[in-house]
Amino acid sequence: MSSTAHIGVTGLAVMGRNLARNFARNGYTVALHNRTTAKTRALLEEFGDEGDFVATESAEDFVAALERPRRLVVMVKAGDPTDAVIAEFAPLLESGDMIIDGGNAHFADTRRREKELREHGIHFVGTGVSGGEEGALNGPSIMPGGSEESYASLGPMLEKISAKAKDGGPCVTHIGPDGAGHFVKMVHNGIEYADMQLIGEAYQLLREVAGYTPAQIADIFRTWNTGRLDSYLIEITAEVLSHVDAATGKPFVDVVLDQAEQKGTGRWTVQIALDLGVPVSGIAEAVFARSVSGHAALRDASRHLAGPTAHKLGKDEAAAFADQVEQALYASKIVAYTQGFHEIAAGSEEYDWNIDLGKVASIWRGGCIIRAAFLDRITSAYEAQPQLASLLSDKSFADEIAAAQDDWRAVIATAVTQGVPTPAFAATLAYYDSLRAERLPAALTQGQRDYFGAHTYHRVGRDGTFHTLWGGDKTEVEG
Amino acid sequence: MSSTAHIGVTGLAVMGRNLARNFARNGYTVALHNRTTAKTRALLEEFGDEGDFVATESAEDFVAALERPRRLVVMVKAGDPTDAVIAEFAPLLESGDMIIDGGNAHFADTRRREKELREHGIHFVGTGVSGGEEGALNGPSIMPGGSEESYASLGPMLEKISAKAKDGGPCVTHIGPDGAGHFVKMVHNGIEYADMQLIGEAYQLLREVAGYTPAQIADIFRTWNTGRLDSYLIEITAEVLSHVDAATGKPFVDVVLDQAEQKGTGRWTVQIALDLGVPVSGIAEAVFARSVSGHAALRDASRHLAGPTAHKLGKDEAAAFADQVEQALYASKIVAYTQGFHEIAAGSEEYDWNIDLGKVASIWRGGCIIRAAFLDRITSAYEAQPQLASLLSDKSFADEIAAAQDDWRAVIATAVTQGVPTPAFAATLAYYDSLRAERLPAALTQGQRDYFGAHTYHRVGRDGTFHTLWGGDKTEVEG
Repeated sequence: MSSTAHIGVTGLAVMGRNLARNFARNGYTVALHNRTTAKTRALLEEFGDEGDFVATESAEDFVAALERPRRLVVMVKAGDPTDAVIAEFAPLLESGDMIIDGGNAHFADTRRREKELREHGIHFVGTGVSGGEEGALNGPSIMPGGSEESYASLGPMLEKISAKAKDGGPCVTHIGPDGAGHFVKMVHNGIEYADMQLIGEAYQLLREVAGYTPAQIADIFRTWNTGRLDSYLIEITAEVLSHVDAATGKPFVDVVLDQAEQKGTGRWTVQIALDLGVPVSGIAEAVFARSVSGHAALRDASRHLAGPTAHKLGKDEAAAFADQVEQALYASKIVAYTQGFHEIAAGSEEYDWNIDLGKVASIWRGGCIIRAAFLDRITSAYEAQPQLASLLSDKSFADEIAAAQDDWRAVIATAVTQGVPTPAFAATLAYYDSLRAERLPAALTQGQRDYFGAHTYHRVGRDGTFHTLWGGDKTEVEG
Repeated sequence: MSSTAHIGVTGLAVMGRNLARNFARNGYTVALHNRTTAKTRALLEEFGDEGDFVATESAEDFVAALERPRRLVVMVKAGDPTDAVIAEFAPLLESGDMIIDGGNAHFADTRRREKELREHGIHFVGTGVSGGEEGALNGPSIMPGGSEESYASLGPMLEKISAKAKDGGPCVTHIGPDGAGHFVKMVHNGIEYADMQLIGEAYQLLREVAGYTPAQIADIFRTWNTGRLDSYLIEITAEVLSHVDAATGKPFVDVVLDQAEQKGTGRWTVQIALDLGVPVSGIAEAVFARSVSGHAALRDASRHLAGPTAHKLGKDEAAAFADQVEQALYASKIVAYTQGFHEIAAGSEEYDWNIDLGKVASIWRGGCIIRAAFLDRITSAYEAQPQLASLLSDKSFADEIAAAQDDWRAVIATAVTQGVPTPAFAATLAYYDSLRAERLPAALTQGQRDYFGAHTYHRVGRDGTFHTLWGGDKTEVEG
């Protein structure tokens, strides 16, 4: 077998298959490998005419089919399967070869694998791939970590198969060393959770308070999609809400069981944020909202709990309320992205990744689930001020929130009063008000901690650490 | 050296020293050991007349001083130091001996250590100890995990040194096997975070909206402390708020830097809840609130953000508002405890611990930071219905929230409108409204997930898993 394939893909489930086809359609010769050969054969039979494929049946053949330095894309389940594949292939590779993990690995695993393989001269490139099956085939947003050297070799190929933003820019960049790519993909998914939850809360308000039907709400989302909320998620929300269930004639959204499921990345985003000391309350509420929805028994046991029933508005009031909800949704969205980018900045700082935040926003403009016009604004904000403390420090975002905030507050006050749950709207507003607060009750917290645990406190405008002798004469001592 | 000591304590920093004294004061002979002997000598010199101590200088002497089966309490920093001490002592012990880890270990570490030592016949008893220095000396709340056999030997001693509830019951019980004790201590601390944050938000509202001074607010808390909110934390809040800084003559709370610090257990509570799929939004907001407060540069960069200034109320309105805040605080507190107990129930289920939730509440009635009259109510709720789906399913709590909820909503609506951050108040109400909601927007979330990722969905009242061909003719297929 001649070593002619530019790249190889092992793991030919739907994501792997579609990525392989994407490479082939873009003119690359693609070696194929799968644990069972049936999938390899099926791909060739069905899509063999899309480009140059080299089917292989063993790990040895697969590796032998690749030009050097080898580029070997692993598309298997995150976790043990990834380690198993690495254990199988690494001994067959040579210094300078690259293993590209395109699964949703935890970035800490990626860091471990990268370090282990680096000792053998192999580049391990943990790579976030967003856009689902569709994106894998027609152009995903790609977030590769790993070494500069690996990106020099892989980058041009990834740029070719990636989604392109409206300005033609490829939706891929070298995120940073070792686990940076998978970290950024994780936060991308966390932001996606928040985005979806905020849209869900907006929908619930338009339904329960404004009294609109799903079809009417679909129209409202379509209108919003022509403005600053223009995004893939808003677009498909309109599609889902306007869909009518054929079996019952009811709105589709009313026949779907209202128990949301989740995979690991939303949860990880919150867990890692907690480790990094970054408040991501909007993302956390989105993850919690899914888990609340899934606790069917608990919900059944709680339906009798006392609370108001939302009253529907009249036609004119409903339209005005919908405008307010758009303001609230947009303001909350800014905050959710602020929190997510704060987490990326903190991860970059912690692990010395030197991530370009504006560039991250720019490669999310196409291919991925949270693609949106809005991301151009984030890129501009970071281009104007690379050291921006947070997105809220960008004048144009701050101005928009300033204009939105009366409505934002009114919508949440209405939700709270009428008993419609808006956890992510409320959490993002509370975060905003906490940041701008002159004083926070944290001073009281510190006083309590000093009282019961002698944990000491700092004083305003004076250096040092202090403790009050609470059980004694309450004098203050330096601690 | 004769082997006469009933128990030994190694690690004589303040917590270990006070626990050792507590044992000695209760008539036990206590062997003492510390890495450096200076602390051992200091304890003897200062407190040697409080009881029978046996000072030892080496690990061998320490072990030799203990009656068999040996009871060896380790009071060192959680993490590597604990492993180091175990590695030092375990080889000197015999089958049936007990190592009691009284530090704030992560329960997963405790599970690992228990398993390793069990293979050598040694009982490892991960034990939560709450109450700080004060509690360690005069009676803490004690949460031992580990084997039944170890509790049979240790239990009577722990019952003697523990705090006693008002009815005389000792604040200790065998929580469950292996890591159960440290798990419950972790959640205790998470609840403590939420409790403190809720008090902080109440304080902030009384200050900013009602316009009360810290001294006036201290009086309000003192009044609350005579009612259903009667608790240690409310009591010390009044103490902290009424304290005047000697150096400046200002209220103490105004001279303390408003940046709260934290240790690991609050964060762990949220991280583990996410793993277990338990929504603990009230606790999460409390952890995030501390981390927001500590981001000084971000806060400085955010002070200019637009928002309302709270307007102070007149005297009569202020008094009425304070009553509403009491209702809100109480309702949010019920929800925060509901979330915490849900996490304990989920942990118990996951790890087969068979934890008695009512008993957990009862041993928190004395000694620990969250001790409160309220806990009797929780015990009663679980005694009446051990399989209670959640505290909110208890009729008396549900009735209280029903009575409180108008005020709860009014307070949060006011906070939202006037720009006072109340993240934990808002999160707990949103949780409550989510649980009682007939339908949640999770149905839309599932529709979106099916649209972009073919993740499938369930239908209301029909078995099976379904997928809509969104890109095609939108027929539904079983998936």
